Amino acid sequence: MTIRPPQEWATAPKNDYEEDADRMTIFDEATAVIRRAAGRYDAMLDARFAMVVPGSATPPAINGGALLATVMRAALADSPLPHPVATSAHFLRIGAIGPAEVHVTWLKHGRTAATARAALIQDDKVILDTTMTVGTVSGPATASGDQAGHAADALPGTLTWTGPPPGFPPIAECVNLGQWRGTTGADGTTGYAAQVEMLMDPATAGWRRGEPSGLPEMRGYFQLRERQDPDPYMLALAVDGLPPVVFGLGATSWAPTVELTWHMRAVPVPGPLAVAARARHVSGGWFDEEAEVWDASGRLVAQSRQIARVGRGPMRGLANGATEATVLA
Amino acid sequence: MTIRPPQEWATAPKNDYEEDADRMTIFDEATAVIRRAAGRYDAMLDARFAMVVPGSATPPAINGGALLATVMRAALADSPLPHPVATSAHFLRIGAIGPAEVHVTWLKHGRTAATARAALIQDDKVILDTTMTVGTVSGPATASGDQAGHAADALPGTLTWTGPPPGFPPIAECVNLGQWRGTTGADGTTGYAAQVEMLMDPATAGWRRGEPSGLPEMRGYFQLRERQDPDPYMLALAVDGLPPVVFGLGATSWAPTVELTWHMRAVPVPGPLAVAARARHVSGGWFDEEAEVWDASGRLVAQSRQIARVGRGPMRGLANGATEATVLA
Repeated sequence: MTIRPPQEWATAPKNDYEEDADRMTIFDEATAVIRRAAGRYDAMLDARFAMVVPGSATPPAINGGALLATVMRAALADSPLPHPVATSAHFLRIGAIGPAEVHVTWLKHGRTAATARAALIQDDKVILDTTMTVGTVSGPATASGDQAGHAADALPGTLTWTGPPPGFPPIAECVNLGQWRGTTGADGTTGYAAQVEMLMDPATAGWRRGEPSGLPEMRGYFQLRERQDPDPYMLALAVDGLPPVVFGLGATSWAPTVELTWHMRAVPVPGPLAVAARARHVSGGWFDEEAEVWDASGRLVAQSRQIARVGRGPMRGLANGATEATVLA
Repeated sequence: MTIRPPQEWATAPKNDYEEDADRMTIFDEATAVIRRAAGRYDAMLDARFAMVVPGSATPPAINGGALLATVMRAALADSPLPHPVATSAHFLRIGAIGPAEVHVTWLKHGRTAATARAALIQDDKVILDTTMTVGTVSGPATASGDQAGHAADALPGTLTWTGPPPGFPPIAECVNLGQWRGTTGADGTTGYAAQVEMLMDPATAGWRRGEPSGLPEMRGYFQLRERQDPDPYMLALAVDGLPPVVFGLGATSWAPTVELTWHMRAVPVPGPLAVAARARHVSGGWFDEEAEVWDASGRLVAQSRQIARVGRGPMRGLANGATEATVLA
């Protein structure tokens, strides 16, 4: 278990991308799209965001959040409004490392909202089918801050209200998940776990030593190892970025997302994202996972709910989850 | 304020449809579809589920849940699996009373899940765009009941866990919203409020007398006046069936749903549905509303989250909400 001091987050470059506009981050590269024709984009599903890396017994598969970010880049390229307010994504097939296409069709252009369908296609099959409604959400929190817990204003357009935050421990008290086997390549640079950093609330990290909490909850801080300011694409990665909540019930096998819808609620400020996820109901092989993402200013910036399958393999208490290929794979 | 005794719920016919198979209920009729060709269905958007009835100053508009149920009937007509596990719906335009079409395209047929896109079309424009993933959820609760609040089983397929219920008061203590003006016609039989019965938790009904609670929450019991057993279509109606949660903040104007995703989690038993809804964040003119539907056996049967617009009109404390055309319209 490694405790990372909060200073490390603070001293890392806040945004490589802005400091050198010619250099893309790994995440931006891995989820980039190139326009080929109207509504047609080329993408390259990138091994650096693989959940199962080449060389494993299981076929390589790309992280769902990275697939979602790829589709969103294509849809937002032609968007008349800046923010992905509501994105619904149905995960139909596993995305394989290699070339893919995104097909975008706009269904409505309104003043307040516009809606597009966008699908990720590989080998003529739909991998990920999305519908996105775009609009404009609140800007980043100002120094005066939000007013939480009560209605602050009497005019509809400016009515603000936020429920109480989930309660995150200080970063210094969190457990670094490290780079687990199965999603990092032999060179230690390939795969999802080599790209993201998760600092977990110890209360939700017991499954790593075979002592699941008994509650389907995950809380922690989420950041790319190559620091960059959070943007809508990173929020799409973060809403499904933590380990599946059913790990807290001891169900530590592969838990594939079937459908995920997320809402961007405000523009995040620079800094690490705090993510809290929980389930409300597990039965019939299905579980829900609803996540909230709070930015470094303490503002709720994204919400999601997904429905996923409880893993098929036998559940087991992992003596050392960090070295097991099946964890998070 | 009318208090309805719980006996009234118990003595009403439980399911007219089953008692007389030839007779459809108003809800079933109003949301029916007729197959015209492969993947093409005819529908008739029905004044009996209008939120704004003919004769009002505002153009007539159909309840979003009724539109959703209509689209779902078309998609489920050809479904290889019985239950709408995940339905994402983007509301693009107002549905008008009159003929419409539903176009259905299947994207995947899997053993555990299948996915279709289905759109409601009127005058060659998409009114409602949906993606639906179907599967099989748990059957209705048995006499032994669910085990709530803890993991009951060690095998993934049978792992069950449910979070604590929201806390509903007894039906006898609830406030009947009655038939409010604006969504009932001159004859008292047309419109949404003539079809549904809502018994609200008094703690969330203060807005009706100009005393909003200050919290964006609604809780209550939901049932069709013409009794019928809950099915997936009624769940689609119920998840957005209560007044908008922002009424609790005093924002009692029209609050149009922009996107709603709902999950069917179990087959409901006969009886009234208990619905609890709340918001987590209101800003920039947007609010989220997440709802849970619990059946008469105390089982969580459906979950939803929607993103909607805070009404444009001025907010006001209503001296008598039940007689204001803008309430719920």
